[in-house]
Amino acid sequence: MQNKLETLIDKHMSSLGATKVSLSSISSEELWQRSGRLEGRDSEFLRLQDRKGAKYLLSPTHEEEITEIVANAVNSYKDLPLRLYQVTRKYRDEARPRQGLLRGREFLMKDLYTFDTTEEQARETYDQVRKAYSAFFDELNLPYLVASADSGSMGGNLSHEYHLASANGEDNIISCKKCDYSTNEELYPGTLGPHELNHAKEANTDINTILTSTPFLSKDKETLFNVVTPRGSGPINTHLLKKLHTQPSIDTTLENAFAVWSALNKKSPDRPRMELQVIDGRLAHLNLSNPTGFTMTHLDLALTVPSETSTCPSCSSPSSLKISKAIEIGHTFHLGTRYSAPLNAQVLSSSNKLAPIAMGCHGIGVSRLLADAASQLMDSKGLNWPVKIAPFTTVVVAAPKAATEEDLARVYDVLAQEERVQQQQITEDGNRGSSSTVLDVTLDDRDRPLGWKLRDADLIGYPFIVVLGKAWKASGKVELQCRRLEVREEVSLEELGARLRELAKEL
Amino acid sequence: MQNKLETLIDKHMSSLGATKVSLSSISSEELWQRSGRLEGRDSEFLRLQDRKGAKYLLSPTHEEEITEIVANAVNSYKDLPLRLYQVTRKYRDEARPRQGLLRGREFLMKDLYTFDTTEEQARETYDQVRKAYSAFFDELNLPYLVASADSGSMGGNLSHEYHLASANGEDNIISCKKCDYSTNEELYPGTLGPHELNHAKEANTDINTILTSTPFLSKDKETLFNVVTPRGSGPINTHLLKKLHTQPSIDTTLENAFAVWSALNKKSPDRPRMELQVIDGRLAHLNLSNPTGFTMTHLDLALTVPSETSTCPSCSSPSSLKISKAIEIGHTFHLGTRYSAPLNAQVLSSSNKLAPIAMGCHGIGVSRLLADAASQLMDSKGLNWPVKIAPFTTVVVAAPKAATEEDLARVYDVLAQEERVQQQQITEDGNRGSSSTVLDVTLDDRDRPLGWKLRDADLIGYPFIVVLGKAWKASGKVELQCRRLEVREEVSLEELGARLRELAKEL
Repeated sequence: MQNKLETLIDKHMSSLGATKVSLSSISSEELWQRSGRLEGRDSEFLRLQDRKGAKYLLSPTHEEEITEIVANAVNSYKDLPLRLYQVTRKYRDEARPRQGLLRGREFLMKDLYTFDTTEEQARETYDQVRKAYSAFFDELNLPYLVASADSGSMGGNLSHEYHLASANGEDNIISCKKCDYSTNEELYPGTLGPHELNHAKEANTDINTILTSTPFLSKDKETLFNVVTPRGSGPINTHLLKKLHTQPSIDTTLENAFAVWSALNKKSPDRPRMELQVIDGRLAHLNLSNPTGFTMTHLDLALTVPSETSTCPSCSSPSSLKISKAIEIGHTFHLGTRYSAPLNAQVLSSSNKLAPIAMGCHGIGVSRLLADAASQLMDSKGLNWPVKIAPFTTVVVAAPKAATEEDLARVYDVLAQEERVQQQQITEDGNRGSSSTVLDVTLDDRDRPLGWKLRDADLIGYPFIVVLGKAWKASGKVELQCRRLEVREEVSLEELGARLRELAKEL
Repeated sequence: MQNKLETLIDKHMSSLGATKVSLSSISSEELWQRSGRLEGRDSEFLRLQDRKGAKYLLSPTHEEEITEIVANAVNSYKDLPLRLYQVTRKYRDEARPRQGLLRGREFLMKDLYTFDTTEEQARETYDQVRKAYSAFFDELNLPYLVASADSGSMGGNLSHEYHLASANGEDNIISCKKCDYSTNEELYPGTLGPHELNHAKEANTDINTILTSTPFLSKDKETLFNVVTPRGSGPINTHLLKKLHTQPSIDTTLENAFAVWSALNKKSPDRPRMELQVIDGRLAHLNLSNPTGFTMTHLDLALTVPSETSTCPSCSSPSSLKISKAIEIGHTFHLGTRYSAPLNAQVLSSSNKLAPIAMGCHGIGVSRLLADAASQLMDSKGLNWPVKIAPFTTVVVAAPKAATEEDLARVYDVLAQEERVQQQQITEDGNRGSSSTVLDVTLDDRDRPLGWKLRDADLIGYPFIVVLGKAWKASGKVELQCRRLEVREEVSLEELGARLRELAKEL
């Protein structure tokens, strides 16, 4: 299953002309110091020292390592573009590891790194990667969302997240029912589009047309909070605000905190007071002036919760938003020179000038994808694997007295021959190495009752079960079961292959 | 290449009915404490702590982890036999990492663990594993040696090493030219067979018929060493002895150290003296008595160097031994209850008694094998990959004016069709998943001169190069090159597939 998923990834990476590599899981602290990522937000490292006291960490990702390698191997624009990927274990010392493979401290990740001579070429590469990602997720046949996203600590300024719907998901994806707008909640900019918000400062826009100020008072009435968020981005997440400022806790019951504050002020002018201007993370780059003289607190979080009645910032349709719980399964980043500049990964351009390489990095959470596919499609009887990554597509089982060993072998052979024909076709189509669209088959010949085997097959989650039962004895037909599509029908051996191929398209 | 090697391993593991798993690279110190391996000889751990201070290590091997898992999953003899393997990264904080992949601190290893109800069944399993290992190494077509070996710190008492000849090797393999005797130098028992040596004690053999005592004196004449080794096992490795006892260093020039010592003794009876009885590691289990009253030092090393003039301990032929420098590439261990007992991995037997599981563990050094295959077969022009693990078996290149793009495509298609036919044959033979005997093909269509491409193909080490040059223009024949077999001949397209298959048998 993991093998099949990796083969599917190989196929789509190969469509990008990417070469597979395998970097060490161990990286030196010194390298991360040079990129500036050792301290700061990315501090969830598992660290170790060797017998000589040299300091290492278990890599959560490999921008530093691969940039260092490419810096030493590449000299000229003629050596580019270069696209390198791997599927290896990554490590993060999560504060709260949970839900098994969904958020573990050791996880399997596909990471692709792209290297181009110019920023423009890197952005073309970025678009190609996005297409390959969509083709990959399309082929998996799981409902997914693409959202523009925050680049976080990765650097760069162009980034998309790929999400699978998941009741266990930790992200809220905001999408519009009327247009193709889709974003992570953290980036939802309110009634103004991201463009307007980004350029409000430069355009000398009246700041009041893009911002909303909301006052809160602390319960001890010592501190006034003036919370500044993008206008129309939804009600303020006071739960989040409370978590950020536990001392003093915030009184959310006041109708007009500012009026209460002013009244208090008059009564006892000597009491110590705090006046805090809290700026929503999406406004950080606006460099807001502070006419109130309040102490400024810049957050790196969005402080509002958009609702389904909010207005789409792209097509301006009112009440058109949809909010979906989702889990991030892939991420594309345009990095620019975020790593190539500090790590001196440079090439000579065609005009003989030395310039840092324009990079991108693009991940897929392999173990997380398996876990989410499992939990998304399972029902009370067991798992249901997507046909492209099922351990086997079809299992053949027989009622003890309905079929002889020869019967079983005959049915198995029909399906195995079908598999060979498909394999042949794929090879001729030129998709070498991809066994992923083949309907493969296994035979459950264990010495157990039929009911036990059927329950076990349901539990394992084969997309198709082929049963040799009553119909086989009576008319030489097999019973084809597919739990996900609620199919249970008698099929002759001649029609079986075609019917499986037909149903497989929906799985 | 690594993929092909892993596929080949999968095929032979599957012949044993083994299931592929993937354990974490991180193990807890607590578990290793319980097995008793945290302290002691296996102290080359890379250790780490998480954010809560819990202690972990990067696993060099997985006996502890897998035994713990199986202990929790298996209850009855009906659940056995169980055979689990993985191909994952392992870690060892080597004192002297060197020679790249041959001895690194991070390496790729295949490890198979076997679980049986009885000791007898476990020994049958052991024999099956040995057969599968031989089949695997046979298929690789690299000259290898199998030697009976010391179990070291792994526990158990039945063990074999698989070695590839290697000028860089760290082991000396002693084998007999007349019989099938083969052993690691450390186990060479001298003129007595291992059986005689093992049972000498029980059989009340006169100890002097199986031992040799050799006296050495320290340079400061303070210490007398009486070195006890198996009789006929060769001259004493004084270099090793010196390394073990640097203070005081040993005088190897004395003809009769004991006589000198006795003389000294008489002259100055009050001087402090040491009398050391040094026992060769192969004799440790004999529990030798100490009539001399010397201080006993038991080594865990063999202290003699067999020579090619020594006698074979198996067939007793004189001067029949061969000593080969080799590198260990695989190891099979019968473990018995070494891990299952301390970690409580027990099953109910058919007679309803609870007993510890009988285990085995069996490794193949995957990255080391690639490195050794590379260094063993390379020549001044580049690498030479065994046909089963070459990145591609055949590369097609053309002289710029000798062939059109259509010509190239035609030759490529002939070889790709040949590949499909082979693939089909393998699938029909039932060896599903094994693409390892297929002669696959790639096309070098880069815009470079023919000479550059041929040098590059030599460097990469494709077993076969197919050139469209003069002969193609003149008579529609390709030039087939195989550097290892010194083949360079003109072949028609019709004969090409058959000729490649024929030559491939020797690679």
